[in-house]
Amino acid sequence: MPIYRAPVDEVMFLLTDVLKVARYDNLPGFADLTPDLALAALAEAAKLCERVLQPLNQSGDQEGCARHEDGRVTAPKGFKEAYRQYATGGWMGISAPTEYGGQGLPGLLTVVVNEFMSSANMAFAMYPGLTQGALTTILIHGTSEQKARYVPKMVEGSWTGTMNLTEPHCGTDLGLLRTKAERQADGSYRITGTKIFISAGEHDLAENIVHLVLARIEGAPSGIRGVSMFIVPKILPNPDGSLGARNAVSCGAIERKMGIHGNATCVMNYDGATGWLIGAENRGINTMFTMMNEARLGVGVQGLAVSEVAYQNAAAYARDRLQGRALTGAKFPDRPADPLVVHPDVRRMLMTMRAFNEAARALVMWTALQGDVSHRAGESTSRRAAEDHMALLTPVIKGMLTDRGFVNAVLAQQIYGGHGYIAAHGMEQFVRDARIAMLYEGANGIQALDLVGRKLAQDNGRALQAFFGEVQDYIVQHGGEAMKPYVDPLTTALVHLRQATIWLTRHAPAKPDDAGAGATDYLHMMGLVVLGYMWCRIVEAAMTRLSDDAVAERMRGKLITGRFFVERILPGTELQLARIRLGSANVMELPAESF
Amino acid sequence: MPIYRAPVDEVMFLLTDVLKVARYDNLPGFADLTPDLALAALAEAAKLCERVLQPLNQSGDQEGCARHEDGRVTAPKGFKEAYRQYATGGWMGISAPTEYGGQGLPGLLTVVVNEFMSSANMAFAMYPGLTQGALTTILIHGTSEQKARYVPKMVEGSWTGTMNLTEPHCGTDLGLLRTKAERQADGSYRITGTKIFISAGEHDLAENIVHLVLARIEGAPSGIRGVSMFIVPKILPNPDGSLGARNAVSCGAIERKMGIHGNATCVMNYDGATGWLIGAENRGINTMFTMMNEARLGVGVQGLAVSEVAYQNAAAYARDRLQGRALTGAKFPDRPADPLVVHPDVRRMLMTMRAFNEAARALVMWTALQGDVSHRAGESTSRRAAEDHMALLTPVIKGMLTDRGFVNAVLAQQIYGGHGYIAAHGMEQFVRDARIAMLYEGANGIQALDLVGRKLAQDNGRALQAFFGEVQDYIVQHGGEAMKPYVDPLTTALVHLRQATIWLTRHAPAKPDDAGAGATDYLHMMGLVVLGYMWCRIVEAAMTRLSDDAVAERMRGKLITGRFFVERILPGTELQLARIRLGSANVMELPAESF
Repeated sequence: MPIYRAPVDEVMFLLTDVLKVARYDNLPGFADLTPDLALAALAEAAKLCERVLQPLNQSGDQEGCARHEDGRVTAPKGFKEAYRQYATGGWMGISAPTEYGGQGLPGLLTVVVNEFMSSANMAFAMYPGLTQGALTTILIHGTSEQKARYVPKMVEGSWTGTMNLTEPHCGTDLGLLRTKAERQADGSYRITGTKIFISAGEHDLAENIVHLVLARIEGAPSGIRGVSMFIVPKILPNPDGSLGARNAVSCGAIERKMGIHGNATCVMNYDGATGWLIGAENRGINTMFTMMNEARLGVGVQGLAVSEVAYQNAAAYARDRLQGRALTGAKFPDRPADPLVVHPDVRRMLMTMRAFNEAARALVMWTALQGDVSHRAGESTSRRAAEDHMALLTPVIKGMLTDRGFVNAVLAQQIYGGHGYIAAHGMEQFVRDARIAMLYEGANGIQALDLVGRKLAQDNGRALQAFFGEVQDYIVQHGGEAMKPYVDPLTTALVHLRQATIWLTRHAPAKPDDAGAGATDYLHMMGLVVLGYMWCRIVEAAMTRLSDDAVAERMRGKLITGRFFVERILPGTELQLARIRLGSANVMELPAESF
Repeated sequence: MPIYRAPVDEVMFLLTDVLKVARYDNLPGFADLTPDLALAALAEAAKLCERVLQPLNQSGDQEGCARHEDGRVTAPKGFKEAYRQYATGGWMGISAPTEYGGQGLPGLLTVVVNEFMSSANMAFAMYPGLTQGALTTILIHGTSEQKARYVPKMVEGSWTGTMNLTEPHCGTDLGLLRTKAERQADGSYRITGTKIFISAGEHDLAENIVHLVLARIEGAPSGIRGVSMFIVPKILPNPDGSLGARNAVSCGAIERKMGIHGNATCVMNYDGATGWLIGAENRGINTMFTMMNEARLGVGVQGLAVSEVAYQNAAAYARDRLQGRALTGAKFPDRPADPLVVHPDVRRMLMTMRAFNEAARALVMWTALQGDVSHRAGESTSRRAAEDHMALLTPVIKGMLTDRGFVNAVLAQQIYGGHGYIAAHGMEQFVRDARIAMLYEGANGIQALDLVGRKLAQDNGRALQAFFGEVQDYIVQHGGEAMKPYVDPLTTALVHLRQATIWLTRHAPAKPDDAGAGATDYLHMMGLVVLGYMWCRIVEAAMTRLSDDAVAERMRGKLITGRFFVERILPGTELQLARIRLGSANVMELPAESF
């Protein structure tokens, strides 16, 4: 039976020592997030995740969701009650505006709680996770009437949300979509079509489900510029907010899939369902990107979350399982064998996971903080800089954290040997669950293209230059002896990243395939640089706490783990740069029919 | 529904053009392997794999094996009939000695057929695969009576075999094992204990199962030097060869696991079962290594096999699935979108798999050929050199081919986007099935330790120096202009490998953890060098066929794919060398309790 302990101390250290979140007290909601309140909230979230959600993770995987003959879908046993506890605990609305029943706390806090929840039970966490994305979309693009109608119900957790984009013949290429919307006399639309891969599309956790659906209004242009977004509730709300008639939307099937069995992945049939336009007509893709960008960050968090819980279990197993002797002679001669943790190759795997998890968490929290600044800062310069940060780093977080998160789940499973393959230990579930994060919300190759093809050049590279500038400034300001072992490898990696950027910028216009061939390497390269930067900031903060006996051991651990990262993992940028500079040579030469 | 087409042409090219197998006609059985016979045999094997085994792969995964209340285990529907076709086709014995009913053909042919079978249906292929290992063990270590009793039945496929090593508390560390053997008056032993993770441990495909079981004879020394191996048949054979009484061995449970559901992974209970010693008393580990080395090669082949079939499906999907437009402008403006194969990032993934598969197959076949030489050559110098090759490269093949095979299955799944996660496409099964190969027959970290801790120094590094010498000689002899783009990167990689070897050899004696920390990198580094060497030999052979119109296109493809490997993948050795030179710094510093 797998274990999980929410890393509350780690989060607190990042909040107070690394991100120094007190500096943001001037932003709405931040003054409320005192260290005491943060600690209390995180401890409560930890309790929910460790005691309620995590114990349902394996059983949820084994049982899966069931679609009944009448089209109803039930989540695995225990999910409904767990969701009730989540909703009544007020977790859905901790960062939502107070005017709609939320607590108005920083979005940063929600992101941290999402990490805990996804570690404890990723399939479960997706039900509220998708609701958050839908909520934000309605808050930003909805009319005041739409906001009043849907947001309070979603904040209190009575209604959940979904996003309906994919159709059987189109995933990435949404310009091909066929679901149609017919204008009705009362201003509503009749929505007809089939959507697939709809996470949390139908279930029994909430009394209503608010579907956000991409469709094409009759007569709209073909392609992506003719797509609009609609709110299509499962049950039509009456004007007084009570539930009215069932809408003509139903779950046609649930997919048999590799993992996240506890979440219902639905085929959704819209048979002339009533919907209302949200956002501008034919600008559905823009509306979608609000939801998509939030979802992409959430998926990046899933990569970290599974890596964290897989690491915790592998570490515990490595400390407990007796097998073989240390290469340097028996460490526990009185026991039949030494624990696995004495073996350097096992250490290598544990350190690889650990070095990723701590920096990835810092990156996620730093970015969530930028998200708050982008929504809450008073003046536009800060907001714009924060938006730039989000635009640039969202594909990196989604692509790199899910790729590495999956690899780490595989490493954690590897530490178990043959036992890792057996369902009862739960390690193989982490691998199966983590796998989806590389595929959905835009497969990771699409993230790489988004980064290289759009984000680099956007606004004349303003976001990228700001990022380079920040890291470069940090390097200049931290050139002292103590930080040198960390800052020097970061300097080298940043040079590689700049060189790769120059190469891509020079070659992409004339030969776009050169950029395409290097896109994934470039995304991972930027990921390494930003994680290296996070490690420098973590280590810098840890150094100031070394004299505090209560945390000294833990802080020394950060100095060691940071060294591991900058010396063993970060130097991967050199190989990535070399590959990028090869352009598309050897990649595109083989005739398509030869594959 | 996944597809599979056995790569018969590829194998024929490797046999005749690359390995030039005709040079070995002086070895027993080789003269029979004419190109015509090889082609006919491979075509027959392809038919069995494509038409019989592959159609059972998904259904076998979904249904799994069933253990009934009386302890009987039944394989998935269709497996029994498929096994009958395999057995009556004579496939089990194609390389077995003619005196026991085999065909005496080179073991190389069996290895190739095993690749086809594991691509088509890995779970199925394990039933005969384990039998082959048991068969070889009895042939080498059995008494003439044991050989006469068991081998003919196994060669004809009526009886299958297993290996019983692991116990709940010991996998890698077999010195801990507790299964006991009590000497009986008639020379037999009473075997009592529990074994776990026994692949093909119980099933309904064959009339009897021959278990090879490690146990400790009463009074034997503790640890690994007190372990012996026993033959324990499921049904005791009568002196006339007919089946007698049921032995006291039974399947207590079958494991719920991540994949290879079509193969029964059993808990085996020995309750005073009758067994007979095979090999010398207390030398069971030596006897086991015959079986283990054969099994490790077989597992490496599984890595290649799943990578191949996953690649074939991903390539077909990439050619067919219309999504998005080429970065360089629409390639098929008359269709709603271009096929995925126009995208450089998709090409990168396809080329990565392809570049691995072709070289890995060459490596496997080259090594299988060395296996034949080691068993069949007349003079001892050749035999010894071939044995050295096997000893050195077995851990590399097992460790590197299964790591990369799994990564490739994941890449192939990635090309499908969200559809890769859906069971019906079959891609997620390849990932789940491929995962076990990194874990069983010694987890890959153990392979790395075997390579670095034992094989490098064995016989004063004789095997390693011979390998270096062969590659170096090849480089010197192929310095011409045409081969230069291939040979130059190989030269660099070989220098890195030599430097890493020198570093490890210098540091390991005083600081074994330094060697342990670099072991996995070293194994992969040697894997890259040997695959790079294979690519040089493939390209060299392909260049001589470029003027042959019938194959010119395919041969040009090898020149391109080889370039991809040596320019994009092989340079990974530099980073591996740098990491190895860090020794165990940062790897072992964290206190064990801090994990």
